[in-house]
Amino acid sequence: MKFFSFWRSLASFRVRIALNLKNVPAEVTFIDLDANAHRDPEYRRINPQMALPALVEDDSTTLFQSLAILEYLDEKYPSPPLLPADAIGRARVRALALMVACEGHPLLTPRVRRYLDHELNLRDTQQVAWRRHWTVETLAALEGHLADNKDTGRFCHGDSPTMADICMVGHVTVAVTQQIDLKIYPTVKRIFETAMAVPEFAKAHPLAQPDTPEAMRPKQ
Amino acid sequence: MKFFSFWRSLASFRVRIALNLKNVPAEVTFIDLDANAHRDPEYRRINPQMALPALVEDDSTTLFQSLAILEYLDEKYPSPPLLPADAIGRARVRALALMVACEGHPLLTPRVRRYLDHELNLRDTQQVAWRRHWTVETLAALEGHLADNKDTGRFCHGDSPTMADICMVGHVTVAVTQQIDLKIYPTVKRIFETAMAVPEFAKAHPLAQPDTPEAMRPKQ
Repeated sequence: MKFFSFWRSLASFRVRIALNLKNVPAEVTFIDLDANAHRDPEYRRINPQMALPALVEDDSTTLFQSLAILEYLDEKYPSPPLLPADAIGRARVRALALMVACEGHPLLTPRVRRYLDHELNLRDTQQVAWRRHWTVETLAALEGHLADNKDTGRFCHGDSPTMADICMVGHVTVAVTQQIDLKIYPTVKRIFETAMAVPEFAKAHPLAQPDTPEAMRPKQ
Repeated sequence: MKFFSFWRSLASFRVRIALNLKNVPAEVTFIDLDANAHRDPEYRRINPQMALPALVEDDSTTLFQSLAILEYLDEKYPSPPLLPADAIGRARVRALALMVACEGHPLLTPRVRRYLDHELNLRDTQQVAWRRHWTVETLAALEGHLADNKDTGRFCHGDSPTMADICMVGHVTVAVTQQIDLKIYPTVKRIFETAMAVPEFAKAHPLAQPDTPEAMRPKQ
């Protein structure tokens, strides 16, 4: 299995966590988005959409879109499960994951940043405000759904990690980078800290990858 | 089962199609986004995120996020299936659906339009260009994945409708509203026309709902 990843890509972060949790070995190819490597004809043949991540099976079947890859990995390697055993629980976990993947993240991607920069010529302060606005909106939505919900446990749903946690930690990582105070999202903050203390999550962190630039790595 | 819907909401459009295909009766409550009905405390208790759609089971369990609702309906009412029988096929269908739900649609929602309008004070021409840019980008991505793919059939995947078609028709409906010429996306155009000729799709169209304003209805 080949996995096409980039250290900073939040969608790649999700798949890294799932591969770690499932303990599935994958040969990683690093696609440097900053150097436009995703536009190379070679990668374009793998994913015509030129987006990351992609997972290529040994028979050359290519999988794309991080949430579809998570579902596939969960079907192919059922243990440990990334979804609850009951349909209502699965619907809740998928919905929490989609709140990040369909609402928070899409407004914070490099292609949107490029549009704000080149097409709209937004000033830096406007770009910062944009990112902060959408980051905070999804944090508040997650807190609204997680706080005081009987199904919320140590993690977003019960006491073991699911797709919801996998998506949520990426979003909170963005919030931390933006120095957003998490105190007013206490449930999100608590679950983020619980999840990132799990080695399979920690090892997948954007700043801990082989292709993370040296200057970005946390000082020891 | 109660279904909270708004005629113009593309996420509601998806759930309407699924309910029609599965022939599941639901009592519909119309939430007028234009009148801010989604911000009423009554609806806020149902979905703290104040987003549409929501589906409420008879035991008051609430489901939210359209793709999570589609998965739930497919698990609860397996016939006709909205996903293929094989894992690789399911991954492809989910990925196509997510291309619309996580990339195209999020940049075209009312909350984004409001931000462009009120926070960035974009001129009309800039707003039109924004909508067109993201609409076209997803049309091109879909065409890239659908054209010349052996799994593409009468519909996005094989010869019966799946979640991919359900998401795709909403996106193409937006493109039609923007008068974007579909000729350069021939596979997308063909599948859109095939799907919208299916009564379960046609009946779910935004302009054919009980809460569609009279002035918006197509002239007979």
